[in-house]
Amino acid sequence: MTATFRPEDHAWMAQALRLAAQGLFTTTPNPRVGCVLVRDGQLVGSGWHRRAGEPHAEVHALAEAGAQAAGATAYVTLEPCSHHGRTPPCADALIAAGVSRVVAAMTDPNPLVAGRGLARLAAAGVSAEHGLLAAEAAELNKGFIQRMTQQRPWVTVKLGASLDGKSALSDGRSQWITGPAARADVQRLRARSCAVLTGAGTVMADNPRLTVRDFAVERQPLRVVAEGVMCAGALERAVYQDGGRTVVACALAHPGQRAKLQAQGVTVWELPLANNPGKVDLPMLLAQLAQEYGVNELLVEAGMGVCGALLQADLVDELVIYQAPVTLGHDARGLFDIPPLPNLDVARRWQWHDVAKVGNDLRLTLRR
Amino acid sequence: MTATFRPEDHAWMAQALRLAAQGLFTTTPNPRVGCVLVRDGQLVGSGWHRRAGEPHAEVHALAEAGAQAAGATAYVTLEPCSHHGRTPPCADALIAAGVSRVVAAMTDPNPLVAGRGLARLAAAGVSAEHGLLAAEAAELNKGFIQRMTQQRPWVTVKLGASLDGKSALSDGRSQWITGPAARADVQRLRARSCAVLTGAGTVMADNPRLTVRDFAVERQPLRVVAEGVMCAGALERAVYQDGGRTVVACALAHPGQRAKLQAQGVTVWELPLANNPGKVDLPMLLAQLAQEYGVNELLVEAGMGVCGALLQADLVDELVIYQAPVTLGHDARGLFDIPPLPNLDVARRWQWHDVAKVGNDLRLTLRR
Repeated sequence: MTATFRPEDHAWMAQALRLAAQGLFTTTPNPRVGCVLVRDGQLVGSGWHRRAGEPHAEVHALAEAGAQAAGATAYVTLEPCSHHGRTPPCADALIAAGVSRVVAAMTDPNPLVAGRGLARLAAAGVSAEHGLLAAEAAELNKGFIQRMTQQRPWVTVKLGASLDGKSALSDGRSQWITGPAARADVQRLRARSCAVLTGAGTVMADNPRLTVRDFAVERQPLRVVAEGVMCAGALERAVYQDGGRTVVACALAHPGQRAKLQAQGVTVWELPLANNPGKVDLPMLLAQLAQEYGVNELLVEAGMGVCGALLQADLVDELVIYQAPVTLGHDARGLFDIPPLPNLDVARRWQWHDVAKVGNDLRLTLRR
Repeated sequence: MTATFRPEDHAWMAQALRLAAQGLFTTTPNPRVGCVLVRDGQLVGSGWHRRAGEPHAEVHALAEAGAQAAGATAYVTLEPCSHHGRTPPCADALIAAGVSRVVAAMTDPNPLVAGRGLARLAAAGVSAEHGLLAAEAAELNKGFIQRMTQQRPWVTVKLGASLDGKSALSDGRSQWITGPAARADVQRLRARSCAVLTGAGTVMADNPRLTVRDFAVERQPLRVVAEGVMCAGALERAVYQDGGRTVVACALAHPGQRAKLQAQGVTVWELPLANNPGKVDLPMLLAQLAQEYGVNELLVEAGMGVCGALLQADLVDELVIYQAPVTLGHDARGLFDIPPLPNLDVARRWQWHDVAKVGNDLRLTLRR
């Protein structure tokens, strides 16, 4: 049940959230979860989930606490699991250790299982509460929650733009609009994302690697290239070459090209839109990324075609715009290719989420 | 001479600057100036310049101080004048009142007179210093300084834009991109400006009045309409109708239209560009606005043609972009119509000056 929390409850949960955030780059497709065990006002154990297949946060914390877990309060950023997955249920482990109270920041986002872990604890006589720093916990797992509740990833469209909304010169050259701090920030966005989506046009124009290179990571994001009608060639492009996982999602595959891509280890999906078979079915692509690869957070780094199509299909959850203090003029390349609007009332309006200076650029974050 | 200042000097000068700022909407073409007189740590007189033809700040402060001015320190945000203009020289008045020390935030920006007021004071045995909060004083009179030193106004280009750098739908409709707080903020920008410049296209599309209406002002800005080859008609447009002062600056006047405009009290200037007689000579227009009307600060509220031409001619000192959390798509109207850039190295780079939330919009201020 929801309860009234004390100041020390907030402080301990904040610590559990900081622990959970350590899994930002590694837990996918699992959620980021942290746990602290507190007895008589003292921390007796803590842990965070690192990677799918490895122990959950609660298991680490219980191992650290040992016998001191008896009578302790467990602060955990997500409801303890009640099912046998790759690891045994954490609710059972907490009960077995004699924990007397469990505070969860939020319940499991999957509506089919939400509340079962807490109910299991309550049935065993453990005081089970939730709703403490729930918004912060949800923020950390916005992608996992979205996948559990809507069967598609959280979609962040990242853009590098001039003051006048241009991403590149008219010939497509864009490499140096934003500064090094913005580019480093994008590496962090990539690192936390399960997958990065681009378009075939960007692959041809910029030849991006779409990998994290500024710092060591245990896991590179899946790379996804959207292409309408597949063209031959381009096999030497970085996204098809350097050993990472890549999916090409096209509307119509070119048989020879498909075979060559597959021979290079690239996965090819043919997902034509029902009423426009030359275009990729984007909702289907997102659903398939969620289902086949457990993609929680999808980062879009693409040109105005792919970005415009996602916007038009109402599939964008978040915009992250790195705005450089430069003017390029109307002739340069825009951000979203969408059909003309009949009037301003139908223009898409966003909610400001954050504005920050990143190096000499401004980072605007907006949400639907 | 420049000197070392004490903490109390800073506090008094800050007070003088706050007084000076009260003239923000009224002093033009004169600078905004404030003055405080301090004796034995006590304020004995203060004043600010309200309007051309009325007493200078020092005169107000001396009148308030009366006999207590003897032996006092005068903090004044601009070097006291040493010449007979519409009022007698303030340097003489300070000397006559027995002021013992004068601290000026900055010297007169006119290089032909700078330092003469302070020299006159020093010659009379008054301790005369300058350079205290000079940057703040210069900010307050950026337009006056620009006109004195470069014989043209400070040019601020104001833009209302979507996140993707669009000012209007493709048919030109733009009225409601930004919110009421941004529009109120623009009224303040207009009120402090000596003149507002727009283009004939905006006059036809939006029929703006370009006046301050949110609050009472003693002085409306001069309205300036740039038009290449003058067209007939449009006499009923608000800028030509409602009794305010308006200048039409064209490359080639239409004789009948010119006569009708002049009959309505509108001033017509013919300022063709030497190497392109269908375009207005913008540097000449700015010089003439400075010379004929004493325009210190010029606000540009125009479409991408005029804004692009000013940018291309390197005449923009400041951008003020009100950015609404909305996306309009590549097809919509842009901000700057300039020729395609050969490469990114030649793109115009700006310095961030300020970023602020204004209602639900973001206000970006950048300078050259």
